[in-house]
Amino acid sequence: MTRNEVTELIILQKSAMGFTWSELAKAIDKSKEWTTAALLGQMTLTKEQAETLGTMLNLPVDATTQLQVVPYKGSLPTAVPTDPLIYRFYELVNVYGTTFKELIHEEFGDGIMSAIDFSMDLKREPDPLGDRVNIVMSGKFLPYKSY
Amino acid sequence: MTRNEVTELIILQKSAMGFTWSELAKAIDKSKEWTTAALLGQMTLTKEQAETLGTMLNLPVDATTQLQVVPYKGSLPTAVPTDPLIYRFYELVNVYGTTFKELIHEEFGDGIMSAIDFSMDLKREPDPLGDRVNIVMSGKFLPYKSY
Amino acid sequence: MTRNEVTELIILQKSAMGFTWSELAKAIDKSKEWTTAALLGQMTLTKEQAETLGTMLNLPVDATTQLQVVPYKGSLPTAVPTDPLIYRFYELVNVYGTTFKELIHEEFGDGIMSAIDFSMDLKREPDPLGDRVNIVMSGKFLPYKSY
Amino acid sequence: MTRNEVTELIILQKSAMGFTWSELAKAIDKSKEWTTAALLGQMTLTKEQAETLGTMLNLPVDATTQLQVVPYKGSLPTAVPTDPLIYRFYELVNVYGTTFKELIHEEFGDGIMSAIDFSMDLKREPDPLGDRVNIVMSGKFLPYKSY
Amino acid sequence: MTRNEVTELIILQKSAMGFTWSELAKAIDKSKEWTTAALLGQMTLTKEQAETLGTMLNLPVDATTQLQVVPYKGSLPTAVPTDPLIYRFYELVNVYGTTFKELIHEEFGDGIMSAIDFSMDLKREPDPLGDRVNIVMSGKFLPYKSY
Amino acid sequence: MTRNEVTELIILQKSAMGFTWSELAKAIDKSKEWTTAALLGQMTLTKEQAETLGTMLNLPVDATTQLQVVPYKGSLPTAVPTDPLIYRFYELVNVYGTTFKELIHEEFGDGIMSAIDFSMDLKREPDPLGDRVNIVMSGKFLPYKSY
Amino acid sequence: MTRNEVTELIILQKSAMGFTWSELAKAIDKSKEWTTAALLGQMTLTKEQAETLGTMLNLPVDATTQLQVVPYKGSLPTAVPTDPLIYRFYELVNVYGTTFKELIHEEFGDGIMSAIDFSMDLKREPDPLGDRVNIVMSGKFLPYKSY
Amino acid sequence: MTRNEVTELIILQKSAMGFTWSELAKAIDKSKEWTTAALLGQMTLTKEQAETLGTMLNLPVDATTQLQVVPYKGSLPTAVPTDPLIYRFYELVNVYGTTFKELIHEEFGDGIMSAIDFSMDLKREPDPLGDRVNIVMSGKFLPYKSY
Amino acid sequence: MTRNEVTELIILQKSAMGFTWSELAKAIDKSKEWTTAALLGQMTLTKEQAETLGTMLNLPVDATTQLQVVPYKGSLPTAVPTDPLIYRFYELVNVYGTTFKELIHEEFGDGIMSAIDFSMDLKREPDPLGDRVNIVMSGKFLPYKSY
Amino acid sequence: MTRNEVTELIILQKSAMGFTWSELAKAIDKSKEWTTAALLGQMTLTKEQAETLGTMLNLPVDATTQLQVVPYKGSLPTAVPTDPLIYRFYELVNVYGTTFKELIHEEFGDGIMSAIDFSMDLKREPDPLGDRVNIVMSGKFLPYKSY
Repeated sequence: MTRNEVTELIILQKSAMGFTWSELAKAIDKSKEWTTAALLGQMTLTKEQAETLGTMLNLPVDATTQLQVVPYKGSLPTAVPTDPLIYRFYELVNVYGTTFKELIHEEFGDGIMSAIDFSMDLKREPDPLGDRVNIVMSGKFLPYKSY
Repeated sequence: MTRNEVTELIILQKSAMGFTWSELAKAIDKSKEWTTAALLGQMTLTKEQAETLGTMLNLPVDATTQLQVVPYKGSLPTAVPTDPLIYRFYELVNVYGTTFKELIHEEFGDGIMSAIDFSMDLKREPDPLGDRVNIVMSGKFLPYKSY
Repeated sequence: MTRNEVTELIILQKSAMGFTWSELAKAIDKSKEWTTAALLGQMTLTKEQAETLGTMLNLPVDATTQLQVVPYKGSLPTAVPTDPLIYRFYELVNVYGTTFKELIHEEFGDGIMSAIDFSMDLKREPDPLGDRVNIVMSGKFLPYKSY
Repeated sequence: MTRNEVTELIILQKSAMGFTWSELAKAIDKSKEWTTAALLGQMTLTKEQAETLGTMLNLPVDATTQLQVVPYKGSLPTAVPTDPLIYRFYELVNVYGTTFKELIHEEFGDGIMSAIDFSMDLKREPDPLGDRVNIVMSGKFLPYKSY
Repeated sequence: MTRNEVTELIILQKSAMGFTWSELAKAIDKSKEWTTAALLGQMTLTKEQAETLGTMLNLPVDATTQLQVVPYKGSLPTAVPTDPLIYRFYELVNVYGTTFKELIHEEFGDGIMSAIDFSMDLKREPDPLGDRVNIVMSGKFLPYKSY
Repeated sequence: MTRNEVTELIILQKSAMGFTWSELAKAIDKSKEWTTAALLGQMTLTKEQAETLGTMLNLPVDATTQLQVVPYKGSLPTAVPTDPLIYRFYELVNVYGTTFKELIHEEFGDGIMSAIDFSMDLKREPDPLGDRVNIVMSGKFLPYKSY
Repeated sequence: MTRNEVTELIILQKSAMGFTWSELAKAIDKSKEWTTAALLGQMTLTKEQAETLGTMLNLPVDATTQLQVVPYKGSLPTAVPTDPLIYRFYELVNVYGTTFKELIHEEFGDGIMSAIDFSMDLKREPDPLGDRVNIVMSGKFLPYKSY
Repeated sequence: MTRNEVTELIILQKSAMGFTWSELAKAIDKSKEWTTAALLGQMTLTKEQAETLGTMLNLPVDATTQLQVVPYKGSLPTAVPTDPLIYRFYELVNVYGTTFKELIHEEFGDGIMSAIDFSMDLKREPDPLGDRVNIVMSGKFLPYKSY
Repeated sequence: MTRNEVTELIILQKSAMGFTWSELAKAIDKSKEWTTAALLGQMTLTKEQAETLGTMLNLPVDATTQLQVVPYKGSLPTAVPTDPLIYRFYELVNVYGTTFKELIHEEFGDGIMSAIDFSMDLKREPDPLGDRVNIVMSGKFLPYKSY
Repeated sequence: MTRNEVTELIILQKSAMGFTWSELAKAIDKSKEWTTAALLGQMTLTKEQAETLGTMLNLPVDATTQLQVVPYKGSLPTAVPTDPLIYRFYELVNVYGTTFKELIHEEFGDGIMSAIDFSMDLKREPDPLGDRVNIVMSGKFLPYKSY
């Protein structure tokens, strides 16, 4: 049973049993963003978290074990994503990439925003012209140092 | 004078004259995020905005005219960015892409977050463990419709 | 059973049972264009639509369930399609891409034609010199906004 | 003077002199779609057409001559376009490519829609929910023949 | 049973039963060039042709049905072929591509040679210095038209 | 002066002076196919041929010398050609590549058709349904040998 | 059983039964270079050779038959090889490619070294500073001819 | 003056002054293989060698200096070479890559043939059936070591 | 059982039986760096090493045999790695590649650091600001030689 | 003057004036590793550092200014490097990538080695069997955190 097959099984079971990602997250007392990433094979669960979710989703032992192993990360099949929803985020990087770079350097100097010491919050923003997706990203600034 | 040369000239002049992106944005009463994108060749300025910024940055007429033409967008030289700061955003898409997809579909159904009807706010978030980059993105949800 | 296998099964069953895409579309009272896309794994059916078509095509429960899950979209195996029929559409984008861009910007200003709020109608156009394929596309114009 | 430089010069002169693509098309009594493609280096003008437009746009002799030479076609710098407007058309091919294929084969049998014996009409479709881009494509169906 | 598996089965059965492509072609009264392409999954057979060849090659019903479905064309696993025989043809396109273009445009004007309304004849050309492969290609010229 | 610039200069001069490729070929008593390839930077001219054509096309000494140097061959800017005329030949390789392979192996055994000991003849084939492009290719068969 | 599976089976059986490539080559009275290439799916064996080796390696009939079919050649999974030993040869092409070209043209004129009418000998060259790999390649020179 | 321009200048001057690579090699008492590679920007000359060759080829001081700087190596413009002569060597790697690997491992165990501690000799091998190119490569075997 | 499946089985068994890489390394008296690489399919074990580890990990005979065969090396699925930990090393090559080159050439002259005669030591470096990863690489310098 | 031209100018001037990277580093009291990276366009200098080095290398004002601007990082022209010295580092990532991953996770848990809070020391390691390149890398471990 490969890690990909574990991911597919989780999506199937979640769908068959009618859980939402939020409910699964609540069961282990974590954010829905982090929990979803973990169940999709991008983060590592503790033994306890894996067993709680494994029981809820009726996963075989093998799958529960794999959720505790650090995965080979990267969730997309191609370098440029083909799915329209995910492509829009890639487009933001492509169009606004140099803008991110200029503004972060203006505010902080040379360095990067960490994608590891990072958290994210995604919610619905009601709007009379059509509701909006609201995403807040927060990543530690890491400066390059000279030595 | 190609559009790329206009972009390079702007960066040079801004640096030589000591402006920040925020100051340039304030001069045309727009956000620093949108203004930076526009000056880096990703958005289109009005005649008035172009002339105000052209005068501040001492640009030739040709460059000022080009800022009013809709550009061929895309600010990166390669499909996978090599610059570490910009790569971190690509990594977020790569690692969290399917998470974005699952959570937006859970909240909204099938559709996308618009990258056009979209705004962004980037600021410093003070933190005793090291300051953080805080980015808020807001994009209209667009549902697929059946017909 | 992966989504791809569901798609292949549908094509097989449709062929074996002698249905046309138009007949399947009529059964759920939708256009043949949208219905075909949905059955080929690009759109999401409602429970009722999935069950109607599942019964007609004699699909297993698993497949019927998958038709109600938002798919990872993108129907082609390579970035540049090899099938001659599909390539001709890619060629249109390659040859006329900048023409589309100039004419839409001339008419509407900076923005895009939505590929989400979008519909399409494909029909035969009789012509004494050989019949023609006639495709009408209609997509909402979405302007970039400054902020 | 390369063909690319001719294209850039035309865009510059058109902008400087305030012409629209429609006005240029009217001057040679052709559609705006075909004329724009020709001036962007994708189609070949006759001597008369080239001279009429060359005079209007104040082009040097060299450029006017090049407009009469069959160009190496293909208007985009990368296999997957980065410009959001043009990308949306690529996305349509990616998402609806197999739908186009199935429906054309259902209606016509094995063959293709010609991208050569082809015409196109692009116009604004007023809509209270936001105006729409309406594109009609008409291409001759070419059947494969056995021999 | 995927289309690829049908192709592999045909090659195996043909080899096991000792048929040549020419014999298979004669059985359906078509050229060996077209028949080979069809059996390799690039063209579509009629019901009668499929059944004749299916019986000769002892194919299962499933395979015989698939030969009547329009295939997703493209017979090579990579954009640049690795097989030396097939690569030589790619090399001809690479080295002589612009020569083809110049000579066809000199003779016919702007347009293409159809790859659909096309036939081919491949035969041995005896030569004392070593026999030669002789290939005759004939494709309809399709002019671009202005509109 | 690079080889590419020599090629561009030749195309310009030929066009400005009104020569056809056939006339240039006749002047050095070679086929139009080989002569065009040589002038487009794919073959090597002798001193005498280079000087004859250099005089006709009014080329500088530098260019005439370069025509006698073995060039780095390959006339296309991308691995998959974007020009529709040249693409159709690539499509033939893609669709008929395995057919070429099977039929040549059936006739000759394991080996290749030479792309070096090769000649080609391209002509117009009148046809009441629209004239056709007729291309005859002749390449020596080279068998693999065991040792 | 695909050709790849035949290759894997041969490597396994050879290893399990303790044969060297040289011993297998001797059994059919051919060089170890050619025999290894043939058994790895790059050359075609005669019926007699296939049966001799098939018996030695205890292959099923199916595999023995496939060794007599002309294979789709190309033994590497990626365009740039990742295996360090094989990469070194690719590096030689990359670094010395233009040197090969210049020296062969200096000695022979315009043409190529055949990779078909070609043989190779690989042996150990004892050296007090560390033994060396010695490879001799011999390929027929094929001149381009004008026509 | 970039390194590429130095290379081009050397080829031009060599051609204009009628030197062969062998004559240039003799002047610095090195093999023609190594000398050609060095002059094509793949190896580094000593001050004395650079000055001797610089004087013979009448190079500017700048170019003579650059020949003494370690170059960024790699002499081909694309990952898969388009020039037929150079491609044949790439084809050898592609077809015989796994054969090289098996035979070197059989003779030496796990390790590689060095492409650095390496020499090469290229000569004409007369043959009544057409002369042959003979290349001898000699590279030190470097074993992987465990630690 | 392919080599990849052997690798996956080892990771599974190691995890199920609770071994660390260090413990496995100690059992064959080698460094943890080399042992891990060998078990992940990048190095070759001796018969004795393979049997020791095979027994510890309860591997089938087939797997134990494969660990003694020289593998096709390369441990990553894509040219640019998607896993953030591995990407950081690729980023170091991308950002510091030319720095490595300049400093090694300054110290040693033209040549390379061997990746074959190479060893590595990876350890934790305690640091009050957060522990650090400390990697020491040692590779033999191999000079290019002229000949 | 682009950033690339600044880099080339620095290499030229350093060579012409006979400085080593170590001497330049000493002048600004930084390590040779960091200083070389900065002068090759990968790090940002302070005003004082830029002026000190600008004076030593006799750079124009423009270049000195650019050294203080945060650069678009990435020092290699292709995704897979062609230069043999730099390729060896890429090979290490390719062959040992999963080993790095396993060992770092074993020691630290899920997370990465920072490529930003990172330092490096490169020196010669004398060895009777041939001197070795010794590289010590030290990067802060950054754990993923759940939230």
